[in-house]
Amino acid sequence: MYHYVKKLMYAVKVGSPDLRFGNMLLEQFGGANGELAAAMQYSVQGLNCDDPKRKDLLMDIGTEELSHLEIVGTLARMHLKDMKRTRDIAEVDPLIAIAGGGGVALCNSLGAAWTADYLKITGEPDVDLRSNIAAEARAKIVYERLIGFCEDPGSKDALQFLMTREIAHMKAFTAALESMGKDRFSIGKIPPTPGRESEYSPDPDVSEKE
Amino acid sequence: MYHYVKKLMYAVKVGSPDLRFGNMLLEQFGGANGELAAAMQYSVQGLNCDDPKRKDLLMDIGTEELSHLEIVGTLARMHLKDMKRTRDIAEVDPLIAIAGGGGVALCNSLGAAWTADYLKITGEPDVDLRSNIAAEARAKIVYERLIGFCEDPGSKDALQFLMTREIAHMKAFTAALESMGKDRFSIGKIPPTPGRESEYSPDPDVSEKE
Amino acid sequence: MYHYVKKLMYAVKVGSPDLRFGNMLLEQFGGANGELAAAMQYSVQGLNCDDPKRKDLLMDIGTEELSHLEIVGTLARMHLKDMKRTRDIAEVDPLIAIAGGGGVALCNSLGAAWTADYLKITGEPDVDLRSNIAAEARAKIVYERLIGFCEDPGSKDALQFLMTREIAHMKAFTAALESMGKDRFSIGKIPPTPGRESEYSPDPDVSEKE
Amino acid sequence: MYHYVKKLMYAVKVGSPDLRFGNMLLEQFGGANGELAAAMQYSVQGLNCDDPKRKDLLMDIGTEELSHLEIVGTLARMHLKDMKRTRDIAEVDPLIAIAGGGGVALCNSLGAAWTADYLKITGEPDVDLRSNIAAEARAKIVYERLIGFCEDPGSKDALQFLMTREIAHMKAFTAALESMGKDRFSIGKIPPTPGRESEYSPDPDVSEKE
Amino acid sequence: MYHYVKKLMYAVKVGSPDLRFGNMLLEQFGGANGELAAAMQYSVQGLNCDDPKRKDLLMDIGTEELSHLEIVGTLARMHLKDMKRTRDIAEVDPLIAIAGGGGVALCNSLGAAWTADYLKITGEPDVDLRSNIAAEARAKIVYERLIGFCEDPGSKDALQFLMTREIAHMKAFTAALESMGKDRFSIGKIPPTPGRESEYSPDPDVSEKE
Amino acid sequence: MYHYVKKLMYAVKVGSPDLRFGNMLLEQFGGANGELAAAMQYSVQGLNCDDPKRKDLLMDIGTEELSHLEIVGTLARMHLKDMKRTRDIAEVDPLIAIAGGGGVALCNSLGAAWTADYLKITGEPDVDLRSNIAAEARAKIVYERLIGFCEDPGSKDALQFLMTREIAHMKAFTAALESMGKDRFSIGKIPPTPGRESEYSPDPDVSEKE
Repeated sequence: MYHYVKKLMYAVKVGSPDLRFGNMLLEQFGGANGELAAAMQYSVQGLNCDDPKRKDLLMDIGTEELSHLEIVGTLARMHLKDMKRTRDIAEVDPLIAIAGGGGVALCNSLGAAWTADYLKITGEPDVDLRSNIAAEARAKIVYERLIGFCEDPGSKDALQFLMTREIAHMKAFTAALESMGKDRFSIGKIPPTPGRESEYSPDPDVSEKE
Repeated sequence: MYHYVKKLMYAVKVGSPDLRFGNMLLEQFGGANGELAAAMQYSVQGLNCDDPKRKDLLMDIGTEELSHLEIVGTLARMHLKDMKRTRDIAEVDPLIAIAGGGGVALCNSLGAAWTADYLKITGEPDVDLRSNIAAEARAKIVYERLIGFCEDPGSKDALQFLMTREIAHMKAFTAALESMGKDRFSIGKIPPTPGRESEYSPDPDVSEKE
Repeated sequence: MYHYVKKLMYAVKVGSPDLRFGNMLLEQFGGANGELAAAMQYSVQGLNCDDPKRKDLLMDIGTEELSHLEIVGTLARMHLKDMKRTRDIAEVDPLIAIAGGGGVALCNSLGAAWTADYLKITGEPDVDLRSNIAAEARAKIVYERLIGFCEDPGSKDALQFLMTREIAHMKAFTAALESMGKDRFSIGKIPPTPGRESEYSPDPDVSEKE
Repeated sequence: MYHYVKKLMYAVKVGSPDLRFGNMLLEQFGGANGELAAAMQYSVQGLNCDDPKRKDLLMDIGTEELSHLEIVGTLARMHLKDMKRTRDIAEVDPLIAIAGGGGVALCNSLGAAWTADYLKITGEPDVDLRSNIAAEARAKIVYERLIGFCEDPGSKDALQFLMTREIAHMKAFTAALESMGKDRFSIGKIPPTPGRESEYSPDPDVSEKE
Repeated sequence: MYHYVKKLMYAVKVGSPDLRFGNMLLEQFGGANGELAAAMQYSVQGLNCDDPKRKDLLMDIGTEELSHLEIVGTLARMHLKDMKRTRDIAEVDPLIAIAGGGGVALCNSLGAAWTADYLKITGEPDVDLRSNIAAEARAKIVYERLIGFCEDPGSKDALQFLMTREIAHMKAFTAALESMGKDRFSIGKIPPTPGRESEYSPDPDVSEKE
Repeated sequence: MYHYVKKLMYAVKVGSPDLRFGNMLLEQFGGANGELAAAMQYSVQGLNCDDPKRKDLLMDIGTEELSHLEIVGTLARMHLKDMKRTRDIAEVDPLIAIAGGGGVALCNSLGAAWTADYLKITGEPDVDLRSNIAAEARAKIVYERLIGFCEDPGSKDALQFLMTREIAHMKAFTAALESMGKDRFSIGKIPPTPGRESEYSPDPDVSEKE
């Protein structure tokens, strides 16, 4: 069960709104590696998880990502809200201006609607943790790029906070994976065919036959 | 900011798992009128809302829908988790069995991935409330149909709770709309062309010219 | 059965083509709340409707929306057709210029292809009418915003006509809903759990248990 | 402008409803090569067409496909409407049963929502006609397969009518293409590099260099 | 089985990178009529083909299209790679800049992700060949438009090569269709209703009854 | 550049076709973690890669996955080709039967069309390798589940080969990542805020302030 607290997890301040940057920020709101993707991937994995400790971890981080979604959305909204005011501003992102009245939508920086096709959920605990570690690495690099294009100190500050938390999550997922004590190339139960799993060759089968 | 409480908003009990019913339940998990759609529609509208009271309402109900998402997902998981066990069971829903290992995914009852294209968010407060009232009516009827197809008393009990809450939300959104004091056919600021907005005719323009 | 009459329902005149506005107009051609969405929502509801009078209303308004689709498409085409001429013009919308040769496509203002995921069709007559009333309110506000960004008097005139008709439809759907004589919070047949449907609380269940 | 006539273009009769066949029929309602795809492809091409005669052809056939959409939808509805009645019936297609209340939706036989990504519209008149000729061939073969799986004489009769019309359209589009007097391998204005356009080789460039 | 040769099928040279043109090029990389669509349509048709000669043709041309995909992607990458460098450059395409770090992605010129909904595969050999002939015509016209907007001689040269190959494929598919010896209006096995398949009338059925 | 060799990388034999299993196999053909997803993710990363050695690895494994796609597609085709024969067989998967004539399509086991939204491509070499390691782990577990539901020895044999290769790729990507010599929590260039990246707390910011 979720409780909503009327307060952002990290207070955001925007000096002067920057429409095009607001648009870029949507990548972390409704984009492929954004906060909703993270929140949903971990929370649905959590729902499917039978181990209480791992379930807690997944639900806790999933919930934190929801709080991040709120931060990113609030920040983007501050940059975009004038979108509906004048024609030249509306041209920057007609979808936000005309369909959204200057409000944010669950889409990426080019207006593609968020889809659950972004998620990686297999129901195999260690495999899901590996997917999450990779997901955090992707989110970190996207925040880094956003910081690189950001000219507003207040926004940069919030992005630095969010970026840092992705590393914290990456560490937590890695610790959880290691606590399972599985060999790093041991996935599932059926062993690969001995010998074949180590060779590197673009045509493994053909090469040995010809 | 969201807090996660390790407890379902409504405790669910499942007598005997029913795979096909678990599959049907996904309609309210990742379907077009399901709980994620409701949670995201209200929460994103809330992010875009400047009026503090309406914002609170949207965030609160959005959060409750997230808690409902957890209930529906938990319930569906209980019905579906044997999916990975045997071949004949896997045939009921190969996507859940093979891709998900018996876990739930953010899709509808036929496996279509959830998409933000389901959401109706315009950034116009009264219009958004109207969309929400209609959304709650749709969710209510979907729960009613699920109850009609459900043979497990514990599941029925949870669905009755969820269905009832949709009516509670419908009332809350209606009260919020009425508190704005707008005429029910007055949308936005530009008035319709006098006279023309009342006539009913499939070819309004042609009819008067010919 | 449909007949096509070689004449627009409302004659459109464009003074000087405005590429970026043409692009914005696509929101009402192939966008989430645009004319195709309206035409398809009402027509498919009509196909599913057993009551002859409501079926007629749905098919008639659905057909009028098809005629509106033709108006909006023609208008957008007039604004966009030079798109293929020069490089700088093509940059405004490369999809229309390169894939479409300056012609319109069934997409929104940012190039997202139209999808039936936009539609709200439940097969429950009063619920469908509620969805339609909300849909008309959304379409009205989108037209209003387009008028606000439009600098061409001829285009504005056509948009005013289209916007007015949305209110006419909103009234017609409201009258149809009222003629059904249902209480406004009575949806379907299964009553909500008494008491619970009125309380407003983010954690209805927990609050009373703790 | 479209007029709606309260009469199907071809009267449909269904002896005994066949749920699974109704489901198959959706392929021609909201599927990739179905009637909506045909109607939209030709109508939008028509909107973009500057030649009056070809425009008329495209709008006329586009309109006929809309009338076909109504026939297919009505037929599918007759087969599917009991879907909401009992649990075992609902299992055939939970999406139609639960989300649609036994009514048809704009999706294919496996529940995928219709998308404008199915359409082929380039704004180049002869290229569009070629796409239409191929589209009619695809629609013909889909109807033929549906007839092969159909056990109801009344439904078969309607499908034979619809299938026949696809050939009529194929002939009309072919005649229109021929009337343009273009060489069949002459597309657009820029000629291919002489010599190279005839050779057949999987690695055309490499082969001559090595 | 595929072998990869470390060499482009056609060497590409780019004088001065042109970000907006790189963006336009994506239309032929991950767009509706682009090289991936061609490669996948022919290769999957080939997998389904029982006739050895036609299967070879489909697999060979499908493979050539994969090599074209590599050319187009390499070309687009050369134009786009500075995207991540400065803010004003990133504004041209925030998705490529922020999510892709200046690298290409399988999307069209407006960022829509490639989808198999673009493909036309029926499993009926002659119908598939007709779809392929039309697909090549579309690809040819898109290359022609790209050449028209291209200011870099090296890029133009590569596009001319690619465009020419589409005509070569069009000829090969046409020859394959003709070798089947089928009448051009004979599709499948069930004949259309005699007489009706030739008449041209928007309301064929009604017209003769009234 | 790609060469096509008329021979499968691994010969497949099917004892008795199993329609429902053929359907399940589509998960690895056009599903979210299937062979096309792997082939495209690695190949597009390869196109974007500036380091020659890593580029070779990505292109080689990407090409091997294309050869695997051909194996899986051929296997699925063997299981599915009778789909078009009789009505009861067609009911198993109407999309394959009616739209595809018994041929495979680029969709998953529930008919959802393949989409590039499945891909994880960031243009950051080490991040991409992490995504690939996780992708191989997911593919391995999906093959394992397919083997568990497979009753045909010949099919099982091919799946064991394919599953083994995923581990081989996982090892190759891991070696490539390690050869870069980066700390496992060091992503990109901007360091996380010291201290904060290690703490584990669902509300990191709030907790220290309150």
